[in-house]
Amino acid sequence: MGFTFTLEATDGIARAGRFQTPHGEIPTPIFAPVGTQATVKAVLPRDLEALGASLILANTYHLHLRPGDELIADLGGLHEFMQWNGPILTDSGGFQVFSLTDLRKVDDDGVTFRSHIDGSKLRFTPEFAIGIQHNLGADIIMAFDECAVPDDREIATDAMNRTHKWAQRCVEYHYSAGNPEKQALFGIVQGGIFPDLREQSAAFITSLKLPGYAVGGLAVGETKEEMLATLDVTLPLLPEDRPRYLMGVGRPEDIVNAVARGIDIFDCVLPTREARHGAALTRAGRLNMSNKQFERDTNPIEADCDCYACRHFTRAYIRHLMKAKEILGLQLLSIHNLNFLLRLVRDLREAIFAGTFDELANTLLDRWVQKNPAT
Amino acid sequence: MGFTFTLEATDGIARAGRFQTPHGEIPTPIFAPVGTQATVKAVLPRDLEALGASLILANTYHLHLRPGDELIADLGGLHEFMQWNGPILTDSGGFQVFSLTDLRKVDDDGVTFRSHIDGSKLRFTPEFAIGIQHNLGADIIMAFDECAVPDDREIATDAMNRTHKWAQRCVEYHYSAGNPEKQALFGIVQGGIFPDLREQSAAFITSLKLPGYAVGGLAVGETKEEMLATLDVTLPLLPEDRPRYLMGVGRPEDIVNAVARGIDIFDCVLPTREARHGAALTRAGRLNMSNKQFERDTNPIEADCDCYACRHFTRAYIRHLMKAKEILGLQLLSIHNLNFLLRLVRDLREAIFAGTFDELANTLLDRWVQKNPAT
Repeated sequence: MGFTFTLEATDGIARAGRFQTPHGEIPTPIFAPVGTQATVKAVLPRDLEALGASLILANTYHLHLRPGDELIADLGGLHEFMQWNGPILTDSGGFQVFSLTDLRKVDDDGVTFRSHIDGSKLRFTPEFAIGIQHNLGADIIMAFDECAVPDDREIATDAMNRTHKWAQRCVEYHYSAGNPEKQALFGIVQGGIFPDLREQSAAFITSLKLPGYAVGGLAVGETKEEMLATLDVTLPLLPEDRPRYLMGVGRPEDIVNAVARGIDIFDCVLPTREARHGAALTRAGRLNMSNKQFERDTNPIEADCDCYACRHFTRAYIRHLMKAKEILGLQLLSIHNLNFLLRLVRDLREAIFAGTFDELANTLLDRWVQKNPAT
Repeated sequence: MGFTFTLEATDGIARAGRFQTPHGEIPTPIFAPVGTQATVKAVLPRDLEALGASLILANTYHLHLRPGDELIADLGGLHEFMQWNGPILTDSGGFQVFSLTDLRKVDDDGVTFRSHIDGSKLRFTPEFAIGIQHNLGADIIMAFDECAVPDDREIATDAMNRTHKWAQRCVEYHYSAGNPEKQALFGIVQGGIFPDLREQSAAFITSLKLPGYAVGGLAVGETKEEMLATLDVTLPLLPEDRPRYLMGVGRPEDIVNAVARGIDIFDCVLPTREARHGAALTRAGRLNMSNKQFERDTNPIEADCDCYACRHFTRAYIRHLMKAKEILGLQLLSIHNLNFLLRLVRDLREAIFAGTFDELANTLLDRWVQKNPAT
């Protein structure tokens, strides 16, 4: 297999490891910046590299619509197209199909829906979603799942059962039509917030013997307690020797809490989206950089941050850029916010090696809960 | 004097030189990227440096309104605020006052007008405009002038006479209240498209014995022939040992034509504005990167260009970014377009040293006129 996960250290349940891919090694725990449309918004690939990003995510649904996965395949694949030579993960499109599109009709074979761009009628099946991901050529690809509301038992059961059947079809299609040496297919555990469904789902999905597993259907409206309780139930059911991916999670405190429960991989649009809204992530909490309080503040966004924005620019300048609606403001905040989360997972990883994970986690969580939650 | 202009070579009327400023030397002919609101739109200062930009421009009127020139002075001046350690030029605000604002009332003492941001009532006088530029601290500052429509003789005469009185007041104020060792005040020759007015204006303005001179009131609606004829009349009247600045000009063919007539310094928003509109400047002409023809084009924007965008990305990728309205598209096009004009002036400078200016100028102009004008 072209993919190897090496567990390097544990501290309690928290894990540090390395996941080998054809485009390089991913140290875990890791946060993956999101490049929905084959670009991490407003950040040059060379700046992403400088930030130490090792894995980035791109969206199957968006790239299928525009510019088209066949075009990307013809031009040499997604790595070549977007000039990112490190590991890439593509989602299955499931989340977007269920959250962005209109007139959705799910049947056992797939989903028919309308494009959010031009309203044209589209249909995704498990085989079709995997076929798109074959064209894109990411290192890690995801099974096509049904991402349903998490707290209705009947809906969650139906979605889980369909997700299982679709996962099996994804596996069959990928291992016959694809190249499992070059692309690792991860399975997705569903089951909403119901422990028995999560158990059923974990049992089924892990029986497929895949190179990695994701916990799906979280961060979609459930409470924080429900999310953590679901991780508590689900993670012990996943094999230790495979990476575990919590999709769509990127709030700093959620990352800390999920690493504490054994998650290895995260992705989220949060750092770049917050930047576009003028917000900076810091260990002291989230700062709205447009606020008057920063008008004459000559400190960097965050004193001990080593990013390009913090090494050079004052809060006063960044506030000016946001007030004047200058693109440079969101460029600098995107760099800072990505660095914030990449530093966070690096620090958590080091703490796991040092056996000080709980100490670091408690310090961070106490600060975020007591003062000003980071998001 | 803290400012020295050294004429290094001439080829016909075209000149190559160096202008020494407190923040470094400017090789001429030079193109200055425009950072209206203390940022060259969508370009990190380090990328500007990498492009070899030596002089950038910022706008007095915009920075007075937001964030305020006193705030910038309190925080250490414009170089420190925007983290540009090379030479900066600030305009006088005159062009913006006469082109952006409402309810403008000109009297002999100054101009009363309304802010384009919040409609508040403002008044600029020569002393006030220079005072703002003292606060900003740019290396080169400009006299406050009246920029009128160029082809009405009566209006042009009035504006010229007022510009002369104001220039004298700017000089008196700057040499008494300012620091001429740290900031060079340039005078502006007005007079519309009327040769006798230009002669009068050049005689008066050069009598002020300033460290540099600008030709104002061009590129504001006159024909290309009128602009070049006005340069033909005006430039021989300016002293050889002072840099000559053509304000607001940045179309590639205009730069070539103006260097041929003895201009040393240019500025224009064109490269970054064109980038935001999805257009690339190339020696083969202006390319609309959103066009279908680039959908599968794996060439760089311009084959022999050494910018970051051309070294890494295909036209197909940049087209995708523009179609998907991704900020990265205009970031990459801004880098390319700035590099295009900075390379152009470097090439013209080298040709002047080599004695091949006419050859290069003719090759470029023939290509742009025959095929597809660069803008």
